[in-house]
Amino acid sequence: MSRSNLAPDTALAERLFDALRVESFDGVGVTREAYGPGERMAHALVRDAAEGLGLDCMADPVGNLHMVLRGSDPQAKRIVLGSHLDSVPQGGNFDGAAGVLAGLAAVAGLRAAGITPRCDVAVMAIRAEEAGAWFPTSYPGSRGALGRLPAAELAIRNMVTERTLAEHMLEEGFDPGFVERGDRVYGPDNVQAFVEVHIEQGPVLDAMEIPVGIVNGIPGSRRLRNGKVHGEWNHSGGTPRRYRADAAVALAELVMGMDDAWGRLDAQGHSLVCTFCTMATAPEAGFTKIAGEASFMLDIRSVRPASVDAMFDELARLVPAIEARRGVRFELGLESGSTAAPMDAGLRAGLAEAAREAGVSYLDMASGGGHDAAAFAAAGVPAAMLFVRNQNGSHNPHEAMRMEDFDAACRVLTRWLVEQAA
Amino acid sequence: MSRSNLAPDTALAERLFDALRVESFDGVGVTREAYGPGERMAHALVRDAAEGLGLDCMADPVGNLHMVLRGSDPQAKRIVLGSHLDSVPQGGNFDGAAGVLAGLAAVAGLRAAGITPRCDVAVMAIRAEEAGAWFPTSYPGSRGALGRLPAAELAIRNMVTERTLAEHMLEEGFDPGFVERGDRVYGPDNVQAFVEVHIEQGPVLDAMEIPVGIVNGIPGSRRLRNGKVHGEWNHSGGTPRRYRADAAVALAELVMGMDDAWGRLDAQGHSLVCTFCTMATAPEAGFTKIAGEASFMLDIRSVRPASVDAMFDELARLVPAIEARRGVRFELGLESGSTAAPMDAGLRAGLAEAAREAGVSYLDMASGGGHDAAAFAAAGVPAAMLFVRNQNGSHNPHEAMRMEDFDAACRVLTRWLVEQAA
Repeated sequence: MSRSNLAPDTALAERLFDALRVESFDGVGVTREAYGPGERMAHALVRDAAEGLGLDCMADPVGNLHMVLRGSDPQAKRIVLGSHLDSVPQGGNFDGAAGVLAGLAAVAGLRAAGITPRCDVAVMAIRAEEAGAWFPTSYPGSRGALGRLPAAELAIRNMVTERTLAEHMLEEGFDPGFVERGDRVYGPDNVQAFVEVHIEQGPVLDAMEIPVGIVNGIPGSRRLRNGKVHGEWNHSGGTPRRYRADAAVALAELVMGMDDAWGRLDAQGHSLVCTFCTMATAPEAGFTKIAGEASFMLDIRSVRPASVDAMFDELARLVPAIEARRGVRFELGLESGSTAAPMDAGLRAGLAEAAREAGVSYLDMASGGGHDAAAFAAAGVPAAMLFVRNQNGSHNPHEAMRMEDFDAACRVLTRWLVEQAA
Repeated sequence: MSRSNLAPDTALAERLFDALRVESFDGVGVTREAYGPGERMAHALVRDAAEGLGLDCMADPVGNLHMVLRGSDPQAKRIVLGSHLDSVPQGGNFDGAAGVLAGLAAVAGLRAAGITPRCDVAVMAIRAEEAGAWFPTSYPGSRGALGRLPAAELAIRNMVTERTLAEHMLEEGFDPGFVERGDRVYGPDNVQAFVEVHIEQGPVLDAMEIPVGIVNGIPGSRRLRNGKVHGEWNHSGGTPRRYRADAAVALAELVMGMDDAWGRLDAQGHSLVCTFCTMATAPEAGFTKIAGEASFMLDIRSVRPASVDAMFDELARLVPAIEARRGVRFELGLESGSTAAPMDAGLRAGLAEAAREAGVSYLDMASGGGHDAAAFAAAGVPAAMLFVRNQNGSHNPHEAMRMEDFDAACRVLTRWLVEQAA
């Protein structure tokens, strides 16, 4: 294989970014509804470009699009490069799309350099990753492809349309029966590596002035989405300190106690995040009242389960102490969460080697959010992620990934790909 | 004057409480709309009873009802006993009404004992005290009678009907022109004492097992109704601790800091209350987000202005420290408040003497909430209040003042009245 003129076709990706933005601009940001018109548009647009590159394009029965550069050995396990094309409402143009277009740019680079890989290289546009915005589950597209989407989840309803996932699949021309039968298109037997390029959703790379991150793991989480504090409604003027059971102060004490605990663990080198995503007195709270009820959402994540558990141990210590001190009762509600997904050590080493060869500085880092790569890792497929430096976070119209950083990630990906696919 | 058979007519009051409850029951609690049908009904019902007692009844131009037992000396300054007859929506039957019916019970007691006071004794049913529920101002009825309601406030709108105070006065047959002209019916020149019986709105008397409180003052307040914390919206997974500007944690730190300060002042003997009536992340907060904005209402009250000011000094220390530590910005918004109204020392001493004579144990205590007595005190009229032990707070259907405690308060009031009016 010649590598002398090997380079990703970042210009192609840039044209596609622009076209996606134009087609899905909603007046504020972009909206690409999962299993809806926005995602459909994006799949058609990307497929058209892939066909222009001469890739074999096919949608699988749950709607993921596979755009395949054929390798010389049809028996070799394939490499899959991909991410999702849906977005949150009024979201940014890069979250998800960057991974699909990076895959196309890399494959286009191989073709332009006249390189035929040994194995098939599939660029995969995955369905419905923005579960928080559309379907209340995680990774239905990638889990569907991997045979790991329980049939029961076909009945979950889109939070906007209120139609089921199965109905949406049928409307888009796909086959929920595939999920019901437990079939799959991918697994460890036919995929040697899944690599997902994605914008970093936090500020770390930007703050450290490093263009690319090689992700060491996707954190697991323990979450309380429906925590409550029950105190006593009383008159704010007429109730002296010792007669109060103030739900607001009790919740503030929990928030501060957990934040202090996080600070201690952080100082000890634990890598975790602890967030009270919401914290609120009940709607009937108001002037001249002492709040008798308050609610909160708590989200604790780490690549290391022990770090998350340490915070929940702290929660278990704080709650009864605050209850005793303040005469309130906490109701933590159902706990939900996810398992941490370590990224494949071999792939990470390969990506690091490729970055060094490409002259791209990188940071070894944990992911903050969840990604389809976690579904591949959970299915036993070696998985890895490249993060691209990104300004202004994600899930908002101000996402501002620079093309030079995207190009750096594509160069790392392309160099890694040509080694891995050889 | 004979006092041998002097007793308040508590049975009359009890019948009137029952009739008021029946006529204003709303399915949950009682609703007596200020300058609306509920208050109109209550005034008619009470006037009817007062006429039955032979009292001279007249409404003043802003709608307060004066039910007068004539004294022997028409030149003597009158004694006014009263409170309000409106209620919050779905409120309790005793808040307000207790003070009017206690006045009637006391006056009926004097008549039954054949006592003619030297001065006139007016039982006053005051309009529209529940300003928080109907008109966004304080004490329009009593201030209207005292010539201390600014004409501009005639334009404030009822929060339910959206009609102005002037329109409501006209609809009920009264004369907003009286307010515009700055006229008054009462002042220090013609009222020697205003005494208001009221249920305690807090739990102190019940907890201490004392039936009656003699109020030493109505607290002043400093209030922030529209406080905000501005941080940065970020992804809860992707944003490490040191890159956060979390409005929720910053607000929790302020709440805890103020609560700690209150605890220290409380231990030093300061009598004050500090309440974060609301504390909430912005509505757009939700799962996987770090809150970029939060809001709060803060209500600090004390009979001693210095105690309130000490808490605001603490606020002024905490805010910049938290801003610096957490990268947020506080916006305290407009401050509102009220001036403390000390109750008249002579009247308090007289009420205490009457309680001892009546064999009723009492507590010297501060009021929690505001009351019409504050408007009289501000106008220079000697004012005092008797609190009645009350279970389950006020402004809710579960107010549970016991008739034996109400009777104890009426006995104190009657005994004081016969001394004061002599």
